[in-house]
Amino acid sequence: MTSIDLNADLGEGFGRWQLTDDERLLSVVTSANVACGFHAGDAATMRRVCEQAAERGVRVGAQVSYRDLAGFGRRAMDVPSAELAAEVAYQIGALAVFARAAGTRVSYVKPHGALYNRVVHDEEQAGAVVDGVLLADASLPVLGLPGSRLLELAAKAGLPAVKEAFADRAYTEQGTLVPRGREGAVITDPEAVVERSVGLARSGVVTSHSGVPVAVRARSLCLHGDTPGAVELARRVRARLEESGVRVEAFV
Amino acid sequence: MTSIDLNADLGEGFGRWQLTDDERLLSVVTSANVACGFHAGDAATMRRVCEQAAERGVRVGAQVSYRDLAGFGRRAMDVPSAELAAEVAYQIGALAVFARAAGTRVSYVKPHGALYNRVVHDEEQAGAVVDGVLLADASLPVLGLPGSRLLELAAKAGLPAVKEAFADRAYTEQGTLVPRGREGAVITDPEAVVERSVGLARSGVVTSHSGVPVAVRARSLCLHGDTPGAVELARRVRARLEESGVRVEAFV
Amino acid sequence: MTSIDLNADLGEGFGRWQLTDDERLLSVVTSANVACGFHAGDAATMRRVCEQAAERGVRVGAQVSYRDLAGFGRRAMDVPSAELAAEVAYQIGALAVFARAAGTRVSYVKPHGALYNRVVHDEEQAGAVVDGVLLADASLPVLGLPGSRLLELAAKAGLPAVKEAFADRAYTEQGTLVPRGREGAVITDPEAVVERSVGLARSGVVTSHSGVPVAVRARSLCLHGDTPGAVELARRVRARLEESGVRVEAFV
Amino acid sequence: MTSIDLNADLGEGFGRWQLTDDERLLSVVTSANVACGFHAGDAATMRRVCEQAAERGVRVGAQVSYRDLAGFGRRAMDVPSAELAAEVAYQIGALAVFARAAGTRVSYVKPHGALYNRVVHDEEQAGAVVDGVLLADASLPVLGLPGSRLLELAAKAGLPAVKEAFADRAYTEQGTLVPRGREGAVITDPEAVVERSVGLARSGVVTSHSGVPVAVRARSLCLHGDTPGAVELARRVRARLEESGVRVEAFV
Repeated sequence: MTSIDLNADLGEGFGRWQLTDDERLLSVVTSANVACGFHAGDAATMRRVCEQAAERGVRVGAQVSYRDLAGFGRRAMDVPSAELAAEVAYQIGALAVFARAAGTRVSYVKPHGALYNRVVHDEEQAGAVVDGVLLADASLPVLGLPGSRLLELAAKAGLPAVKEAFADRAYTEQGTLVPRGREGAVITDPEAVVERSVGLARSGVVTSHSGVPVAVRARSLCLHGDTPGAVELARRVRARLEESGVRVEAFV
Repeated sequence: MTSIDLNADLGEGFGRWQLTDDERLLSVVTSANVACGFHAGDAATMRRVCEQAAERGVRVGAQVSYRDLAGFGRRAMDVPSAELAAEVAYQIGALAVFARAAGTRVSYVKPHGALYNRVVHDEEQAGAVVDGVLLADASLPVLGLPGSRLLELAAKAGLPAVKEAFADRAYTEQGTLVPRGREGAVITDPEAVVERSVGLARSGVVTSHSGVPVAVRARSLCLHGDTPGAVELARRVRARLEESGVRVEAFV
Repeated sequence: MTSIDLNADLGEGFGRWQLTDDERLLSVVTSANVACGFHAGDAATMRRVCEQAAERGVRVGAQVSYRDLAGFGRRAMDVPSAELAAEVAYQIGALAVFARAAGTRVSYVKPHGALYNRVVHDEEQAGAVVDGVLLADASLPVLGLPGSRLLELAAKAGLPAVKEAFADRAYTEQGTLVPRGREGAVITDPEAVVERSVGLARSGVVTSHSGVPVAVRARSLCLHGDTPGAVELARRVRARLEESGVRVEAFV
Repeated sequence: MTSIDLNADLGEGFGRWQLTDDERLLSVVTSANVACGFHAGDAATMRRVCEQAAERGVRVGAQVSYRDLAGFGRRAMDVPSAELAAEVAYQIGALAVFARAAGTRVSYVKPHGALYNRVVHDEEQAGAVVDGVLLADASLPVLGLPGSRLLELAAKAGLPAVKEAFADRAYTEQGTLVPRGREGAVITDPEAVVERSVGLARSGVVTSHSGVPVAVRARSLCLHGDTPGAVELARRVRARLEESGVRVEAFV
């Protein structure tokens, strides 16, 4: 029987501001990428999300980011390696306190936003993220894009490298993402997203932007929670996966 | 044989800015109160100070603060309990990563600046700090002022409550500090500071502002490192203590 | 013919986070209290709100705050006078750029959140806010609570002191606000809020918490925009005021 | 008679931290690049530096930066144009309050650190900085590197574009700076710096890294104030310029 993990970003508010419907998302996903205070995520929110995740048996992951509240971590930054590694470790450590207090632990690390995109190709920053994870816990899985420098360097360093796919993003024939901004880069038809989820989970195959089948092997599907209707769509994805005989479960 | 701990604030720079002479201070003290990023202390500095402290066998403590870089944590804030507790835990967790990576651990918690002063009397905030420590690690000693609400509530919660004294501050006949701003509140004569240190360590007695002997029992002496001549004075204090037969060693 | 100003807080998002429905609120109010970056309000949002306000002929006011994004400016802080005055001036100056670029100007200053509450009684901070306004522009009106130290000191300093009232807050027999947290402090019945608005505007009289008429003379009514249904209620208030023969217009 | 402006970065502390010796630097330079709060420069420091500059007849310039206190504005950031333009205007407006209160005005704008380097080549960010200046004041000179996109776009937009040179940096035969990190990029011999200053001011010629004379026409020389001995060197530069018959005066 095939199994797949469902991950989503959670706890992305800050103080007075809320963004994601954490409670409802936690009833759908198996892995929660929890914001750690650098792009979002005040300490009280981190605590609450960890408690809610632990109650539901959802894995807690550290969603590490550039230090950029004003830009929500979506602005690439040339952070020197030593600073970036230390900032990644800092975030993991801060989240670990709340995970442990809630009876669980930080089970993986996933970079956020501009850092996620940067470490696909940037050797130096990918290495710095890996160094940061090693500083914090040399057994932590790293979740990222297949083929990214991040997963490559994580694997080299002995960290479990976990691949994720996006059911709502178009893929090229080479199995890479069609860049945002290009026409058709984001799949908006809910039924298409649901079907692609099942395809990705069951056969590791998705239809490329150009219409040919392409292999995208992933242990986790990334769902989104910050747009209207997102939670409802996530529910449908999970339901259809289960109906299709896919076991929805965390990768760790 | 009497023993005393010497603690000082370290790592109180932030990015480009430096404040304390961490390396030289670490050759004098036995406990380092490391800034955790809220009033000072970027992640790379936290890492470096933990490594240097571990090398020298100096204990690492989490110097937790209000979130106030602009005010260096010296401006009292009415932070709701749940937020404050979470922010305290967040800081301890972040520092713990660097302490562990350096082969040591966070050995105690000491509030900084305005928070330190506030929890002397403020029941709610003192309770929140204790809650934050409990969230992070229910065995962590708390370092603070004798008679403070903080130490009282810490002890009630089962946390080791460690008292500290100040050799460069005047005391009232009741054994409390003469408030800063009052004439003579701060002892500036180096020789007087050295002698008071020995008195506090050996007999737990210091001469009050009004000239009478007063009992101030403390397991740790707080030294300062952010003024010119401070490190030199700290060295003299340590040397004189050792000459006087006092063992200078960490309280944990 | 009686006239009244309607003011509300706007632009209280920050980067990715939005809070208030600025566009719709701007179609109701005559004065916009624009967040200036210290409790909310990134620069791009400040620019946009100023442009939208100018287009609609709505006055732009600087909603100055403690530096506290994490607490949304709702946590009282003991900021030394010189720092607070400078921070108030800084915020006014930053907003002034966008107001002028939009063809209007900063027309008044109103403290936000915990600072608003603090300067009701705190002589030192009230004086610091006035100093900050004087630094920025010695002709700027200050909007605040009748009887507050802020308005008193503003008037003493030659600044126009503009009083505001709250249609959704209960008043004591002395004409002061029933503190939040007390039962009945906030009026939640929309029709009651609408009627009280008309009473405040037309006769300067409102029924106190205890049921007696009390005089509350105000040149402006403060409406809220950050709760569900708030904009709709604001619209009703404005419509009923106009039906009652009250001219709704800015105080400057 | 030839004249030259001397500019330096000032007010680059933040709260508790100080960096530059503002008072002594202000006795040497004719233009002060004042930090505006994004990479350094709290509001009280901005006010003080403006007052000191005004007293000495030193021009006040807005040293605008990325929002990056932790990195001191030295980490390049991919900030979208609209955000960057608004952030530049925000900083200029904030500083303008203190300049006017001190009886002077913001007389020019100079980008700081990574933004300074970025706008040498980056069309989009250079345009955003120009947009920000235009938003704030369409008559403000922009100070930057000769040949930079920034000065080019500033001139195109009708803003005075003022060129600066560096007496302590090596130049290529093309008149561009030898990148930091290359051997010999920074001139450390004080006497050489003094002589190069005179050459740059009097003849607009400096000896290149490879030993040939190269034309570097600049209206301002940038001096540094954040290293030991820097202020002393700046004094010597000014003294020698004056002895050589160069009038040291602001460019506006």
